[in-house]
Amino acid sequence: MLLGSIEAGGTKFIAAVGDEEMNIIDMVTVPTTKPEETMKPIITFFDQYKIDAVGVGSFGPIDVNEGSETYGSITSTPKPFWKDYDFVGGLKEHYNVPIAWTTDVNAAGYAEYVLGKAKETRSCLYLTIGTGIGGGFINQGRILNAYSHPEMGHLLIKRHPDDTFEGNCPFHQNCLEGMASGPAVEKRWGKRGIELAGRSDVWELEAYYLAQALVSYTLVLRPERIILGGGMMKQKQIFHLIREQFERMLKDYVAVPDLESYIQPVGLNDQAGIIGGFLLAKNLCVKQRNL
Amino acid sequence: MLLGSIEAGGTKFIAAVGDEEMNIIDMVTVPTTKPEETMKPIITFFDQYKIDAVGVGSFGPIDVNEGSETYGSITSTPKPFWKDYDFVGGLKEHYNVPIAWTTDVNAAGYAEYVLGKAKETRSCLYLTIGTGIGGGFINQGRILNAYSHPEMGHLLIKRHPDDTFEGNCPFHQNCLEGMASGPAVEKRWGKRGIELAGRSDVWELEAYYLAQALVSYTLVLRPERIILGGGMMKQKQIFHLIREQFERMLKDYVAVPDLESYIQPVGLNDQAGIIGGFLLAKNLCVKQRNL
Repeated sequence: MLLGSIEAGGTKFIAAVGDEEMNIIDMVTVPTTKPEETMKPIITFFDQYKIDAVGVGSFGPIDVNEGSETYGSITSTPKPFWKDYDFVGGLKEHYNVPIAWTTDVNAAGYAEYVLGKAKETRSCLYLTIGTGIGGGFINQGRILNAYSHPEMGHLLIKRHPDDTFEGNCPFHQNCLEGMASGPAVEKRWGKRGIELAGRSDVWELEAYYLAQALVSYTLVLRPERIILGGGMMKQKQIFHLIREQFERMLKDYVAVPDLESYIQPVGLNDQAGIIGGFLLAKNLCVKQRNL
Repeated sequence: MLLGSIEAGGTKFIAAVGDEEMNIIDMVTVPTTKPEETMKPIITFFDQYKIDAVGVGSFGPIDVNEGSETYGSITSTPKPFWKDYDFVGGLKEHYNVPIAWTTDVNAAGYAEYVLGKAKETRSCLYLTIGTGIGGGFINQGRILNAYSHPEMGHLLIKRHPDDTFEGNCPFHQNCLEGMASGPAVEKRWGKRGIELAGRSDVWELEAYYLAQALVSYTLVLRPERIILGGGMMKQKQIFHLIREQFERMLKDYVAVPDLESYIQPVGLNDQAGIIGGFLLAKNLCVKQRNL
Protein backbone atom coordinates (compact mmCIF):
# COMPACT_ATOMS: atom_id res chain seq x y z
CA MET A 1 0.00 0.00 0.00
CA LEU A 2 1.38 3.40 -1.01
CA LEU A 3 -0.15 6.39 0.73
CA GLY A 4 -0.16 10.09 -0.14
CA SER A 5 -0.48 12.89 2.39
CA ILE A 6 -0.82 16.65 2.05
CA GLU A 7 -0.41 19.09 4.90
CA ALA A 8 -1.87 22.27 3.46
CA GLY A 9 -0.75 25.19 5.60
CA GLY A 10 -1.14 28.92 5.21
CA THR A 11 2.53 29.49 4.36
CA LYS A 12 3.59 26.15 2.88
CA PHE A 13 2.21 22.85 1.63
CA ILE A 14 4.00 19.61 2.40
CA ALA A 15 3.23 16.55 0.34
CA ALA A 16 4.60 13.10 1.12
CA VAL A 17 4.38 9.51 0.04
CA GLY A 18 4.64 6.78 2.63
CA ASP A 19 4.00 3.13 3.32
CA GLU A 20 1.38 1.65 5.59
CA GLU A 21 3.87 1.55 8.47
CA MET A 22 3.95 5.36 8.25
CA ASN A 23 7.50 5.52 6.90
CA ILE A 24 7.99 8.60 4.76
CA ILE A 25 9.39 7.52 1.38
CA ASP A 26 9.54 10.91 -0.31
CA MET A 27 8.49 14.44 0.49
CA VAL A 28 8.19 17.85 -1.16
CA THR A 29 7.54 21.36 0.21
CA VAL A 30 5.88 24.12 -1.81
CA PRO A 31 5.09 27.71 -0.77
CA THR A 32 1.38 28.60 -0.49
CA THR A 33 0.74 31.07 -3.28
CA LYS A 34 -2.21 30.46 -5.65
CA PRO A 35 -4.03 27.13 -5.93
CA GLU A 36 -2.78 26.27 -9.47
CA GLU A 37 0.77 27.36 -8.68
CA THR A 38 0.96 25.50 -5.39
CA MET A 39 -0.79 22.33 -6.53
CA LYS A 40 1.12 21.85 -9.79
CA PRO A 41 4.44 20.68 -8.23
CA ILE A 42 2.45 18.55 -5.79
CA ILE A 43 0.69 16.75 -8.64
CA THR A 44 4.06 16.31 -10.40
CA PHE A 45 5.42 14.89 -7.16
CA PHE A 46 2.59 12.37 -6.66
CA ASP A 47 2.68 11.41 -10.35
CA GLN A 48 5.98 9.64 -9.72
CA TYR A 49 4.17 7.09 -7.56
CA LYS A 50 1.17 4.84 -7.82
CA ILE A 51 -0.65 5.92 -4.68
CA ASP A 52 -3.63 3.99 -3.29
CA ALA A 53 -5.19 6.84 -1.32
CA VAL A 54 -4.49 10.40 -0.23
CA GLY A 55 -5.14 12.11 3.09
CA VAL A 56 -5.35 15.90 3.22
CA GLY A 57 -5.20 18.10 6.31
CA SER A 58 -5.92 21.65 5.24
CA PHE A 59 -6.00 25.13 6.71
CA GLY A 60 -9.59 26.28 6.98
CA PRO A 61 -12.38 26.84 7.31
CA ILE A 62 -13.20 23.99 4.97
CA ASP A 63 -16.32 22.05 4.02
CA VAL A 64 -16.03 18.60 5.58
CA ASN A 65 -19.63 17.54 5.34
CA GLU A 66 -20.11 14.69 2.92
CA GLY A 67 -23.29 15.27 1.00
CA SER A 68 -22.72 19.02 0.88
CA GLU A 69 -22.38 20.52 -2.60
CA THR A 70 -19.12 22.19 -1.65
CA TYR A 71 -17.65 19.19 0.19
CA GLY A 72 -13.90 19.16 -0.26
CA SER A 73 -13.54 22.92 -0.68
CA ILE A 74 -11.84 25.60 1.33
CA THR A 75 -14.69 27.94 2.24
CA SER A 76 -14.55 31.43 3.75
CA THR A 77 -10.80 31.85 4.24
CA PRO A 78 -9.59 35.46 4.10
CA LYS A 79 -6.48 34.07 2.31
CA PRO A 80 -6.33 35.53 -1.23
CA PHE A 81 -7.06 33.09 -4.10
CA TRP A 82 -8.04 30.15 -1.88
CA LYS A 83 -11.64 31.03 -1.04
CA ASP A 84 -13.97 28.39 -2.54
CA TYR A 85 -11.05 26.38 -3.95
CA ASP A 86 -12.28 22.82 -4.64
CA PHE A 87 -9.31 20.98 -3.15
CA VAL A 88 -10.68 17.42 -3.26
CA GLY A 89 -12.22 18.00 -6.69
CA GLY A 90 -8.84 19.17 -7.99
CA LEU A 91 -7.14 16.03 -6.71
CA LYS A 92 -9.86 13.75 -8.07
CA GLU A 93 -9.15 15.06 -11.58
CA HIS A 94 -5.74 13.42 -11.31
CA TYR A 95 -6.21 10.44 -9.02
CA ASN A 96 -9.05 7.98 -8.99
CA VAL A 97 -8.32 6.92 -5.41
CA PRO A 98 -10.04 7.52 -2.07
CA ILE A 99 -9.28 10.95 -0.64
CA ALA A 100 -9.56 11.74 3.07
CA TRP A 101 -10.27 15.38 3.80
CA THR A 102 -10.10 17.17 7.15
CA THR A 103 -8.56 20.18 8.85
CA ASP A 104 -4.81 20.45 9.50
CA VAL A 105 -5.36 20.25 13.26
CA ASN A 106 -7.66 17.26 12.95
CA ALA A 107 -5.04 15.40 10.91
CA ALA A 108 -2.25 16.23 13.37
CA GLY A 109 -4.48 15.44 16.34
CA TYR A 110 -5.47 12.12 14.82
CA ALA A 111 -1.79 11.19 14.39
CA GLU A 112 -1.10 12.05 18.02
CA TYR A 113 -4.13 9.97 19.01
CA VAL A 114 -3.12 6.89 17.04
CA LEU A 115 0.68 6.98 17.30
CA GLY A 116 1.77 9.94 19.40
CA LYS A 117 1.29 11.30 22.87
CA ALA A 118 -2.30 10.12 23.22
CA LYS A 119 -1.93 6.62 21.84
CA GLU A 120 -2.85 4.90 25.11
CA THR A 121 -5.95 7.07 25.65
CA ARG A 122 -9.50 6.91 24.34
CA SER A 123 -9.95 10.66 23.78
CA CYS A 124 -7.67 13.55 23.06
CA LEU A 125 -7.84 17.25 22.40
CA TYR A 126 -5.08 18.53 20.15
CA LEU A 127 -4.42 22.24 20.12
CA THR A 128 -1.92 24.20 18.06
CA ILE A 129 -0.81 27.63 19.17
CA GLY A 130 1.18 29.39 16.46
CA THR A 131 0.23 31.94 13.83
CA GLY A 132 -3.33 31.00 14.69
CA ILE A 133 -4.92 28.82 17.34
CA GLY A 134 -6.90 25.75 16.34
CA GLY A 135 -8.01 22.48 17.82
CA GLY A 136 -9.36 19.04 17.05
CA PHE A 137 -10.98 16.45 19.30
CA ILE A 138 -10.79 12.70 18.80
CA ASN A 139 -13.00 10.43 20.88
CA GLN A 140 -13.00 6.64 20.59
CA GLY A 141 -11.25 6.85 17.24
CA ARG A 142 -13.63 9.37 15.71
CA ILE A 143 -12.75 12.96 14.85
CA LEU A 144 -15.41 15.36 16.18
CA ASN A 145 -17.37 16.89 13.36
CA ALA A 146 -21.00 18.00 13.59
CA TYR A 147 -22.52 20.88 11.61
CA SER A 148 -18.89 21.44 10.59
CA HIS A 149 -15.41 21.12 12.10
CA PRO A 150 -14.51 22.92 15.35
CA GLU A 151 -12.89 26.37 15.30
CA MET A 152 -11.62 26.32 18.84
CA GLY A 153 -9.17 29.19 18.66
CA HIS A 154 -11.69 31.99 18.96
CA LEU A 155 -13.12 31.32 22.42
CA LEU A 156 -14.17 34.45 24.24
CA ILE A 157 -11.99 34.75 27.32
CA LYS A 158 -11.50 36.91 30.36
CA ARG A 159 -8.81 39.58 30.15
CA HIS A 160 -6.03 39.43 32.72
CA PRO A 161 -6.47 42.48 35.00
CA ASP A 162 -2.89 43.64 34.35
CA ASP A 163 -3.00 43.16 30.56
CA THR A 164 -3.72 46.28 28.52
CA PHE A 165 -3.12 44.75 25.07
CA GLU A 166 -6.29 45.25 23.04
CA GLY A 167 -6.00 42.00 21.10
CA ASN A 168 -5.43 41.49 17.38
CA CYS A 169 -8.11 39.12 16.11
CA PRO A 170 -9.73 40.78 13.08
CA PHE A 171 -13.02 39.06 13.96
CA HIS A 172 -13.25 39.21 17.74
CA GLN A 173 -10.33 41.42 18.79
CA ASN A 174 -9.67 39.93 22.23
CA CYS A 175 -10.70 36.29 21.86
CA LEU A 176 -8.15 33.56 22.68
CA GLU A 177 -6.41 33.83 19.30
CA GLY A 178 -6.45 37.62 19.56
CA MET A 179 -4.68 37.46 22.92
CA ALA A 180 -2.46 34.38 22.81
CA SER A 181 -1.42 33.49 19.24
CA GLY A 182 2.17 34.09 18.11
CA PRO A 183 1.33 37.38 16.35
CA ALA A 184 -0.63 38.57 19.42
CA VAL A 185 2.36 37.92 21.67
CA GLU A 186 4.66 39.68 19.22
CA LYS A 187 2.38 42.69 19.00
CA ARG A 188 1.92 42.94 22.78
CA TRP A 189 5.60 42.69 23.70
CA GLY A 190 7.24 44.03 20.53
CA LYS A 191 9.32 40.87 20.06
CA ARG A 192 8.72 37.35 18.80
CA GLY A 193 8.05 34.58 21.29
CA ILE A 194 11.42 32.97 20.68
CA GLU A 195 13.17 36.24 21.61
CA LEU A 196 11.15 36.41 24.83
CA ALA A 197 12.12 32.94 26.05
CA GLY A 198 13.66 34.21 29.30
CA ARG A 199 10.83 36.58 30.25
CA SER A 200 8.71 34.83 32.87
CA ASP A 201 6.00 37.54 32.77
CA VAL A 202 5.40 36.79 29.07
CA TRP A 203 4.83 33.09 29.67
CA GLU A 204 2.84 33.59 32.87
CA LEU A 205 0.37 35.70 30.92
CA GLU A 206 0.33 33.31 27.98
CA ALA A 207 -0.35 30.45 30.40
CA TYR A 208 -3.17 32.45 32.00
CA TYR A 209 -5.04 32.69 28.68
CA LEU A 210 -4.33 29.16 27.52
CA ALA A 211 -5.30 27.63 30.87
CA GLN A 212 -8.60 29.50 30.76
CA ALA A 213 -9.35 27.96 27.38
CA LEU A 214 -8.24 24.51 28.52
CA VAL A 215 -10.68 24.71 31.43
CA SER A 216 -13.50 25.46 28.96
CA TYR A 217 -12.48 22.66 26.60
CA THR A 218 -12.21 20.31 29.58
CA LEU A 219 -15.73 21.10 30.81
CA VAL A 220 -17.29 20.78 27.37
CA LEU A 221 -15.38 17.84 25.88
CA ARG A 222 -13.89 15.98 28.87
CA PRO A 223 -10.84 14.71 26.97
CA GLU A 224 -8.56 12.15 28.56
CA ARG A 225 -5.50 14.04 27.29
CA ILE A 226 -4.69 17.51 25.97
CA ILE A 227 -1.77 17.86 23.57
CA LEU A 228 -0.39 21.32 22.85
CA GLY A 229 1.64 21.95 19.72
CA GLY A 230 2.55 24.79 17.38
CA GLY A 231 5.39 27.29 17.43
CA MET A 232 4.53 28.92 20.75
CA MET A 233 4.60 25.59 22.56
CA LYS A 234 8.26 25.08 21.70
CA GLN A 235 8.83 27.21 24.81
CA LYS A 236 8.69 24.18 27.07
CA GLN A 237 8.90 26.31 30.23
CA ILE A 238 5.26 27.20 29.67
CA PHE A 239 3.89 23.74 30.37
CA HIS A 240 4.24 23.83 34.13
CA LEU A 241 2.81 27.37 34.16
CA ILE A 242 -0.23 26.20 32.19
CA ARG A 243 -0.74 23.26 34.54
CA GLU A 244 -0.49 25.54 37.61
CA GLN A 245 -3.01 28.04 36.24
CA PHE A 246 -5.30 25.27 35.03
CA GLU A 247 -5.39 23.74 38.50
CA ARG A 248 -6.05 27.13 40.08
CA MET A 249 -8.93 27.84 37.69
CA LEU A 250 -10.62 24.43 37.54
CA LYS A 251 -10.57 24.17 41.34
CA ASP A 252 -11.00 20.40 41.26
CA TYR A 253 -14.52 20.80 39.95
CA VAL A 254 -14.31 17.81 37.63
CA ALA A 255 -11.96 14.85 37.73
CA VAL A 256 -9.09 15.03 35.26
CA PRO A 257 -6.05 12.78 34.99
CA ASP A 258 -2.87 13.82 36.80
CA LEU A 259 -1.93 17.13 35.16
CA GLU A 260 1.56 15.98 34.08
CA SER A 261 -0.15 13.33 32.00
CA TYR A 262 -3.22 15.40 31.10
CA ILE A 263 -1.50 18.42 29.52
CA GLN A 264 1.45 17.44 27.34
CA PRO A 265 3.56 18.68 24.45
CA VAL A 266 3.33 16.91 21.09
CA GLY A 267 4.96 13.55 20.52
CA LEU A 268 5.31 13.54 16.74
CA ASN A 269 6.64 17.07 16.34
CA ASP A 270 6.41 18.52 12.86
CA GLN A 271 5.47 15.21 11.27
CA ALA A 272 2.06 14.89 12.95
CA GLY A 273 0.17 16.51 10.07
CA ILE A 274 1.73 14.33 7.38
CA ILE A 275 1.35 11.13 9.43
CA GLY A 276 -2.26 12.05 10.16
CA GLY A 277 -2.86 12.27 6.41
CA PHE A 278 -1.30 8.83 5.92
CA LEU A 279 -3.44 7.34 8.69
CA LEU A 280 -6.68 8.79 7.34
CA ALA A 281 -5.79 7.64 3.81
CA LYS A 282 -5.01 4.17 5.12
CA ASN A 283 -8.38 4.04 6.94
CA LEU A 284 -10.11 4.67 3.61
CA CYS A 285 -8.16 1.87 1.91
CA VAL A 286 -9.04 -0.56 4.68
CA LYS A 287 -12.69 0.51 4.56
CA GLN A 288 -12.84 0.10 0.78
CA ARG A 289 -11.27 -3.33 0.99
CA ASN A 290 -13.90 -4.38 3.53
CA LEU A 291 -16.86 -3.19 1.49
CA MET B 1 -42.19 -3.71 25.68
CA LEU B 2 -42.59 -1.96 29.04
CA LEU B 3 -40.01 0.70 29.85
CA GLY B 4 -39.01 2.34 33.11
CA SER B 5 -37.53 5.80 33.42
CA ILE B 6 -36.12 7.77 36.34
CA GLU B 7 -35.38 11.46 36.28
CA ALA B 8 -33.23 11.92 39.35
CA GLY B 9 -33.12 15.61 40.20
CA GLY B 10 -31.69 17.51 43.11
CA THR B 11 -35.08 18.34 44.61
CA LYS B 12 -37.29 15.52 43.32
CA PHE B 13 -37.17 12.18 41.59
CA ILE B 14 -39.72 11.28 38.94
CA ALA B 15 -40.20 7.65 37.97
CA ALA B 16 -42.42 6.53 35.13
CA VAL B 17 -43.45 3.46 33.20
CA GLY B 18 -44.16 3.75 29.51
CA ASP B 19 -44.57 1.83 26.30
CA GLU B 20 -42.24 1.79 23.32
CA GLU B 21 -44.22 4.59 21.67
CA MET B 22 -43.17 6.79 24.60
CA ASN B 23 -46.65 6.97 26.12
CA ILE B 24 -46.47 7.45 29.87
CA ILE B 25 -48.57 4.74 31.53
CA ASP B 26 -47.94 5.63 35.15
CA MET B 27 -45.78 8.05 37.07
CA VAL B 28 -44.68 8.87 40.62
CA THR B 29 -42.83 11.82 42.16
CA VAL B 30 -40.71 11.56 45.29
CA PRO B 31 -38.73 14.27 47.12
CA THR B 32 -34.93 13.90 47.05
CA THR B 33 -33.95 13.19 50.65
CA LYS B 34 -31.68 10.22 51.38
CA PRO B 35 -31.01 7.41 48.90
CA GLU B 36 -32.91 4.68 50.82
CA GLU B 37 -35.84 6.99 51.59
CA THR B 38 -36.13 8.30 48.03
CA MET B 39 -35.59 5.00 46.25
CA LYS B 40 -37.99 2.91 48.35
CA PRO B 41 -41.26 4.32 46.90
CA ILE B 42 -39.70 4.18 43.44
CA ILE B 43 -38.98 0.48 43.78
CA THR B 44 -42.51 -0.06 45.11
CA PHE B 45 -43.80 1.84 42.09
CA PHE B 46 -41.81 -0.20 39.52
CA ASP B 47 -42.70 -3.45 41.33
CA GLN B 48 -46.26 -3.07 40.04
CA TYR B 49 -45.01 -3.62 36.47
CA LYS B 50 -42.87 -6.10 34.61
CA ILE B 51 -40.41 -3.69 33.04
CA ASP B 52 -38.01 -4.76 30.30
CA ALA B 53 -35.40 -2.05 30.83
CA VAL B 54 -34.84 1.16 32.81
CA GLY B 55 -33.26 4.44 31.75
CA VAL B 56 -31.91 6.80 34.39
CA GLY B 57 -30.95 10.45 33.93
CA SER B 58 -29.37 11.61 37.15
CA PHE B 59 -28.03 14.81 38.68
CA GLY B 60 -24.26 14.60 38.86
CA PRO B 61 -21.42 14.39 38.65
CA ILE B 62 -21.84 10.67 38.04
CA ASP B 63 -19.60 7.85 36.83
CA VAL B 64 -20.73 6.95 33.31
CA ASN B 65 -17.66 5.02 32.21
CA GLU B 66 -18.41 1.36 31.68
CA GLY B 67 -15.49 -0.65 32.96
CA SER B 68 -14.91 1.74 35.85
CA GLU B 69 -15.23 0.24 39.34
CA THR B 70 -17.67 2.93 40.36
CA TYR B 71 -19.72 2.90 37.12
CA GLY B 72 -23.33 3.69 37.92
CA SER B 73 -22.60 5.80 41.00
CA ILE B 74 -23.11 9.43 41.83
CA THR B 75 -19.60 10.66 42.55
CA SER B 76 -18.46 13.95 44.09
CA THR B 77 -21.81 15.71 44.61
CA PRO B 78 -21.89 18.16 47.50
CA LYS B 79 -25.47 16.94 48.09
CA PRO B 80 -25.64 15.31 51.55
CA PHE B 81 -26.08 11.49 51.60
CA TRP B 82 -25.75 11.01 47.82
CA LYS B 83 -21.99 11.09 47.41
CA ASP B 84 -20.80 7.66 46.17
CA TYR B 85 -24.34 6.27 46.05
CA ASP B 86 -24.36 3.22 43.77
CA PHE B 87 -27.51 4.07 41.82
CA VAL B 88 -27.31 1.40 39.12
CA GLY B 89 -26.14 -1.23 41.61
CA GLY B 90 -29.15 -0.44 43.82
CA LEU B 91 -31.54 -0.92 40.91
CA LYS B 92 -29.84 -4.12 39.79
CA GLU B 93 -30.58 -5.67 43.20
CA HIS B 94 -34.27 -5.44 42.28
CA TYR B 95 -34.42 -5.74 38.50
CA ASN B 96 -32.46 -8.10 36.30
CA VAL B 97 -32.98 -5.92 33.22
CA PRO B 98 -30.71 -3.62 31.17
CA ILE B 99 -30.22 -0.25 32.82
CA ALA B 100 -29.20 2.86 30.87
CA TRP B 101 -27.34 5.42 32.94
CA THR B 102 -26.52 8.99 32.04
CA THR B 103 -26.84 12.56 33.30
CA ASP B 104 -30.21 14.32 33.58
CA VAL B 105 -29.23 16.78 30.83
CA ASN B 106 -28.02 14.02 28.53
CA ALA B 107 -31.33 12.18 28.91
CA ALA B 108 -33.36 15.32 28.24
CA GLY B 109 -31.11 16.34 25.37
CA TYR B 110 -31.38 12.90 23.83
CA ALA B 111 -35.17 13.11 23.94
CA GLU B 112 -35.08 16.52 22.22
CA TYR B 113 -32.72 15.04 19.63
CA VAL B 114 -34.88 12.02 18.85
CA LEU B 115 -38.39 13.41 19.28
CA GLY B 116 -38.25 17.08 20.15
CA LYS B 117 -36.90 20.30 18.76
CA ALA B 118 -33.81 18.74 17.17
CA LYS B 119 -35.43 15.70 15.59
CA GLU B 120 -34.63 16.75 12.03
CA THR B 121 -30.97 17.55 12.83
CA ARG B 122 -27.84 15.45 13.10
CA SER B 123 -26.36 17.19 16.14
CA CYS B 124 -27.74 19.11 19.05
CA LEU B 125 -26.55 20.85 22.17
CA TYR B 126 -29.07 20.82 25.00
CA LEU B 127 -28.57 23.28 27.83
CA THR B 128 -30.61 23.72 30.97
CA ILE B 129 -30.50 26.99 32.88
CA GLY B 130 -32.21 26.70 36.24
CA THR B 131 -30.90 26.06 39.75
CA GLY B 132 -27.71 25.04 37.98
CA ILE B 133 -26.51 25.15 34.41
CA GLY B 134 -25.69 21.94 32.56
CA GLY B 135 -25.43 20.67 29.03
CA GLY B 136 -25.30 17.60 26.86
CA PHE B 137 -24.26 17.15 23.24
CA ILE B 138 -25.64 14.55 20.86
CA ASN B 139 -23.94 14.02 17.50
CA GLN B 140 -25.15 11.49 14.94
CA GLY B 141 -27.19 9.70 17.57
CA ARG B 142 -24.38 9.41 20.11
CA ILE B 143 -24.24 11.24 23.43
CA LEU B 144 -20.84 12.88 23.91
CA ASN B 145 -18.90 11.15 26.65
CA ALA B 146 -15.12 10.92 26.81
CA TYR B 147 -13.09 10.79 30.04
CA SER B 148 -16.47 11.48 31.62
CA HIS B 149 -19.65 13.44 30.86
CA PRO B 150 -19.51 17.18 30.10
CA GLU B 151 -20.00 19.74 32.87
CA MET B 152 -20.73 22.68 30.65
CA GLY B 153 -22.21 25.06 33.20
CA HIS B 154 -18.96 26.22 34.70
CA LEU B 155 -17.32 27.91 31.70
CA LEU B 156 -15.15 30.83 32.63
CA ILE B 157 -16.70 33.93 31.09
CA LYS B 158 -16.09 37.61 30.72
CA ARG B 159 -17.85 39.90 33.15
CA HIS B 160 -20.16 42.54 31.71
CA PRO B 161 -18.51 45.94 32.36
CA ASP B 162 -21.63 47.26 34.13
CA ASP B 163 -22.19 44.17 36.29
CA THR B 164 -20.85 44.36 39.84
CA PHE B 165 -22.35 41.09 41.11
CA GLU B 166 -19.50 38.97 42.42
CA GLY B 167 -20.98 35.62 41.37
CA ASN B 168 -22.20 32.78 43.57
CA CYS B 169 -20.57 29.59 42.32
CA PRO B 170 -18.95 27.92 45.33
CA PHE B 171 -16.23 26.52 43.04
CA HIS B 172 -15.46 29.30 40.56
CA GLN B 173 -17.42 32.30 41.89
CA ASN B 174 -18.02 34.11 38.57
CA CYS B 175 -18.19 31.27 36.04
CA LEU B 176 -21.31 30.97 33.84
CA GLU B 177 -23.32 29.19 36.54
CA GLY B 178 -22.12 31.69 39.14
CA MET B 179 -23.37 34.60 37.01
CA ALA B 180 -26.41 33.28 35.13
CA SER B 181 -28.14 30.45 37.03
CA GLY B 182 -31.50 31.06 38.70
CA PRO B 183 -29.97 31.55 42.17
CA ALA B 184 -27.33 33.93 40.71
CA VAL B 185 -30.04 36.09 39.14
CA GLU B 186 -32.02 36.06 42.38
CA LYS B 187 -28.99 37.05 44.43
CA ARG B 188 -27.97 39.83 42.01
CA TRP B 189 -31.39 41.46 41.71
CA GLY B 190 -32.97 40.47 45.03
CA LYS B 191 -35.95 38.81 43.35
CA ARG B 192 -36.62 35.54 41.53
CA GLY B 193 -36.47 35.45 37.73
CA ILE B 194 -40.22 35.05 37.45
CA GLU B 195 -40.78 38.26 39.44
CA LEU B 196 -38.37 40.11 37.13
CA ALA B 197 -40.14 39.16 33.90
CA GLY B 198 -40.77 42.77 32.87
CA ARG B 199 -37.26 44.07 33.58
CA SER B 200 -35.43 44.27 30.25
CA ASP B 201 -32.07 45.04 31.92
CA VAL B 202 -32.24 41.71 33.76
CA TRP B 203 -32.74 39.70 30.59
CA GLU B 204 -30.27 41.73 28.54
CA LEU B 205 -27.58 40.87 31.06
CA GLU B 206 -28.66 37.24 31.27
CA ALA B 207 -28.55 37.05 27.46
CA TYR B 208 -25.06 38.58 27.47
CA TYR B 209 -23.70 35.76 29.62
CA LEU B 210 -25.58 32.96 27.91
CA ALA B 211 -24.67 34.17 24.42
CA GLN B 212 -21.01 34.23 25.41
CA ALA B 213 -21.22 30.61 26.46
CA LEU B 214 -23.15 29.65 23.32
CA VAL B 215 -20.38 31.16 21.19
CA SER B 216 -17.84 28.98 22.99
CA TYR B 217 -19.97 25.83 22.67
CA THR B 218 -20.53 26.65 19.01
CA LEU B 219 -16.80 26.96 18.27
CA VAL B 220 -15.89 23.79 20.12
CA LEU B 221 -18.79 21.49 19.24
CA ARG B 222 -20.35 22.98 16.07
CA PRO B 223 -23.87 21.74 16.85
CA GLU B 224 -26.59 22.01 14.22
CA ARG B 225 -29.06 23.17 16.86
CA ILE B 226 -28.97 24.56 20.40
CA ILE B 227 -31.94 23.92 22.67
CA LEU B 228 -32.29 25.92 25.86
CA GLY B 229 -34.44 24.63 28.70
CA GLY B 230 -34.76 24.95 32.46
CA GLY B 231 -36.68 27.38 34.65
CA MET B 232 -34.92 30.54 33.49
CA MET B 233 -35.75 29.84 29.85
CA LYS B 234 -39.48 30.00 30.58
CA GLN B 235 -38.96 33.76 30.11
CA LYS B 236 -39.43 33.49 26.36
CA GLN B 237 -38.55 37.17 25.81
CA ILE B 238 -34.92 36.21 26.36
CA PHE B 239 -34.57 34.18 23.16
CA HIS B 240 -34.36 37.09 20.76
CA LEU B 241 -31.95 38.86 23.13
CA ILE B 242 -29.70 35.79 23.18
CA ARG B 243 -29.77 35.55 19.38
CA GLU B 244 -28.90 39.25 19.04
CA GLN B 245 -25.97 39.03 21.43
CA PHE B 246 -24.82 35.77 19.90
CA GLU B 247 -24.70 37.33 16.45
CA ARG B 248 -22.85 40.35 17.78
CA MET B 249 -20.25 38.17 19.51
CA LEU B 250 -19.70 35.47 16.88
CA LYS B 251 -19.31 38.09 14.15
CA ASP B 252 -20.05 35.60 11.38
CA TYR B 253 -16.79 33.83 12.08
CA VAL B 254 -18.21 30.38 11.47
CA ALA B 255 -21.30 29.33 9.58
CA VAL B 256 -24.28 28.51 11.75
CA PRO B 257 -27.88 27.85 10.70
CA ASP B 258 -30.32 30.76 10.69
CA LEU B 259 -30.44 31.87 14.34
CA GLU B 260 -34.22 31.43 14.71
CA SER B 261 -33.68 27.78 13.91
CA TYR B 262 -30.27 27.47 15.63
CA ILE B 263 -31.23 28.68 19.13
CA GLN B 264 -34.60 27.39 20.28
CA PRO B 265 -36.61 26.67 23.41
CA VAL B 266 -37.38 23.07 24.35
CA GLY B 267 -40.00 21.08 22.50
CA LEU B 268 -40.84 18.42 25.06
CA ASN B 269 -41.10 20.69 28.09
CA ASP B 270 -40.92 18.95 31.44
CA GLN B 271 -41.23 15.48 29.97
CA ALA B 272 -37.90 15.48 28.14
CA GLY B 273 -36.01 13.81 31.00
CA ILE B 274 -38.51 10.99 31.41
CA ILE B 275 -38.84 10.40 27.67
CA GLY B 276 -35.05 10.41 27.35
CA GLY B 277 -34.92 7.64 29.94
CA PHE B 278 -37.49 5.63 27.99
CA LEU B 279 -35.56 6.09 24.74
CA LEU B 280 -32.24 5.02 26.26
CA ALA B 281 -33.91 2.02 27.90
CA LYS B 282 -35.51 1.08 24.61
CA ASN B 283 -32.13 1.30 22.84
CA LEU B 284 -30.74 -1.25 25.29
CA CYS B 285 -33.68 -3.62 24.67
CA VAL B 286 -33.20 -3.37 20.90
CA LYS B 287 -29.44 -3.89 21.26
CA GLN B 288 -29.93 -6.94 23.46
CA ARG B 289 -32.44 -8.44 21.05
CA ASN B 290 -29.95 -8.02 18.20
CA LEU B 291 -27.05 -9.66 20.03
